[in-house]
Amino acid sequence: MSRKITIGIIGLGNIGSALAGVLSTNHQVILRNSGVDIRVKKVCDIKKRKTPFSFTSNPYDIINDPEIDVVVECIGGVNPALKLVLAALYNSKHVVTPNKELVAKHMKQLQKVAGENKVSLMFEASVGGGIPIIQPIKECLPANNITEIYGIVNGTTNYILSQMTEAGKEFSDALKEAQAKGYAEPNPSADINGNDAAYKAAILASVAFQIEVNMKDVYFEGITKVAQEDIQYAADIGYLIKLLAITKKVGKEVEIRVHPTLVPKWHPLAAVSDNYNAIYVKGTPMGELMFYGQGAGGGPTASALVADLISIAHCSLPITHYSLLKSKIRNISQVQSRYYIRLQAPDRYGVLAGISKAFAKKKVSIAAVVQKEMVGNVATIVIMVHTVAERNLKAALAEVKKLSVVRKVCNVIRIV
Amino acid sequence: MSRKITIGIIGLGNIGSALAGVLSTNHQVILRNSGVDIRVKKVCDIKKRKTPFSFTSNPYDIINDPEIDVVVECIGGVNPALKLVLAALYNSKHVVTPNKELVAKHMKQLQKVAGENKVSLMFEASVGGGIPIIQPIKECLPANNITEIYGIVNGTTNYILSQMTEAGKEFSDALKEAQAKGYAEPNPSADINGNDAAYKAAILASVAFQIEVNMKDVYFEGITKVAQEDIQYAADIGYLIKLLAITKKVGKEVEIRVHPTLVPKWHPLAAVSDNYNAIYVKGTPMGELMFYGQGAGGGPTASALVADLISIAHCSLPITHYSLLKSKIRNISQVQSRYYIRLQAPDRYGVLAGISKAFAKKKVSIAAVVQKEMVGNVATIVIMVHTVAERNLKAALAEVKKLSVVRKVCNVIRIV
Repeated sequence: MSRKITIGIIGLGNIGSALAGVLSTNHQVILRNSGVDIRVKKVCDIKKRKTPFSFTSNPYDIINDPEIDVVVECIGGVNPALKLVLAALYNSKHVVTPNKELVAKHMKQLQKVAGENKVSLMFEASVGGGIPIIQPIKECLPANNITEIYGIVNGTTNYILSQMTEAGKEFSDALKEAQAKGYAEPNPSADINGNDAAYKAAILASVAFQIEVNMKDVYFEGITKVAQEDIQYAADIGYLIKLLAITKKVGKEVEIRVHPTLVPKWHPLAAVSDNYNAIYVKGTPMGELMFYGQGAGGGPTASALVADLISIAHCSLPITHYSLLKSKIRNISQVQSRYYIRLQAPDRYGVLAGISKAFAKKKVSIAAVVQKEMVGNVATIVIMVHTVAERNLKAALAEVKKLSVVRKVCNVIRIV
Repeated sequence: MSRKITIGIIGLGNIGSALAGVLSTNHQVILRNSGVDIRVKKVCDIKKRKTPFSFTSNPYDIINDPEIDVVVECIGGVNPALKLVLAALYNSKHVVTPNKELVAKHMKQLQKVAGENKVSLMFEASVGGGIPIIQPIKECLPANNITEIYGIVNGTTNYILSQMTEAGKEFSDALKEAQAKGYAEPNPSADINGNDAAYKAAILASVAFQIEVNMKDVYFEGITKVAQEDIQYAADIGYLIKLLAITKKVGKEVEIRVHPTLVPKWHPLAAVSDNYNAIYVKGTPMGELMFYGQGAGGGPTASALVADLISIAHCSLPITHYSLLKSKIRNISQVQSRYYIRLQAPDRYGVLAGISKAFAKKKVSIAAVVQKEMVGNVATIVIMVHTVAERNLKAALAEVKKLSVVRKVCNVIRIV
């Protein structure tokens, strides 16, 4: 019993052309695996490309084609992707997209228009590349009250941090290597500043908690300040540093944030190295799950796009069955966390006494202190503090900075 | 837009009652997450149980109820589960089951009857407990040519091996501890002998490669022969020992086997400890994926059963769209693998020369040798050999055993 769907692909860059390639070479595999006969009627790009499929440079040839059931948008970015996706939805075409920026920024509008036109908006490929995560959350985990998701959702930064951890490299050298290997863009800022991961955090939060997310409420911080020294001190106390996208329910509020995070070595996320991604999900009654795989690249992303196409073909009703709830996103200043603090003091005498006093004043409680041998005149001190609200820590650190015995607060990193 | 399905649960042991509990406490969560209103019309057990739902001790009150859409079989084993599941399918009721023995032994017949009656047979919970794996393979990965699946699919044995690895325990002590914690049954044989994992291997092979599997073709070997010494020697050379369920395509044949396996420490499966499960899947174009979580227990299993119920409610057509292919399952004697061999020699002089000669005669090539200090008169020698067919290794070992310089071949373990 097979079903046929007819699709058009707009955008033939790395991902669009990988999708066209897989649909061509694996057509029989897909038919056998899913019972779905996916026909590519037209592909579109602004410049002429070699393709086994009928080519157009006008996206409306696809959007207005009455035979096409699904439009796959592989342009990336918001302009002109938003306009084209909306046009397709208004034309009652299902849309499949790997475009995290578009989905994170315009989820609410897109889902509304999709719902009104009784079609589906699918974006499995927007988070975690080839890792099934959006569909499993929606289709496999509905029994659960999901409480937290932690994800390594950016392969570039995970590669850089892995190189810093495993090969002892400094950030700038690891970045150069990532660029040489094609894991980082010539302009790497969206990755290393945490922006890319922030889109994915917003999408995960929106799907898991069925909430509206405004990108301005998503706190993000990149890995550019992580030093080789931090990697080493973290290792000494049993941790690795990972860039995590975190979202969790805290009472009626939701946290959505991206930042470097100390992860204990025994945690399954700690074993995720190189350019791999992994998403860890906690809920009741399922307990803890983790989904691991290639978070980018044409092949893995094409695999996820096909998953969405199959899902559309298999299900008779549009898959967006709910409206997004409004929810308060907690400001980072109110987030509670444990912290790692690295600071330098010209001399160690009196330092701990001064810091302890400043911390106690703001109700910050010290969990552990590591002092290494002095290098020249400078002592490095690493402090871990118990769970505390960020605003209290910030206030305490402002006091600490004023102490004559403290030269510099070098870095502050949250602990998972 | 919500849909209603009406179900009956047969069997109220650990899993059946956990399912009834989740459907009762999380009814609104499930409705919100999935748009599906799951109504439990009747529950059944041979002995009277406390339940918020209407109770019967006659399973046919459920099977013959025209209002019930789905029968959830939570009895376990083949008798009387097979008879009841078939009766439900013949009555055009969808069936959801966590029963790995039933599914592994009777997949072909059950799928045939389900297909003839235009209903679905769903068994997400039969492998990996709360980990979504069957549905992701079917629904999220159809773009891929899956080539291999390696899984830690038995929590009992993973707990025992983790204790042996992390706490240096001997097998028998670790088993006792697993029993005390409720991770192992009073009669643990189905787990520790690899039988339970063999059912799951058969199901994974059948789903991933869409083939018929006869359980007699599934090779399995348990963990009872794994000694603390093996754990330590493996660690010395950078490996952990895990009980893996392995299935892979090799040309037109398929391998399906369960045995203790040396897994390199850097492999994502190596980080799976305690009673957790994880399933690692390789395919083109997606690359490598891993799914990690709780492989047993009422809550996680109930989560997976609900996933199947949602899937039935969301899809208009029965989900079994293909017929199982016949495929040659490769005999273990023909399987190619690398091997770890631990043997004892009364004296080390002449041993390696003798072994090398015996191995060379059968085309077994040595990759590495570790010799430790002699204890008393006995030298332990650990040999790793390059990939070779099992029958060649067995023939070589038969020769080795005849050597006067070899006292005993203590253990032979495959390397992933």
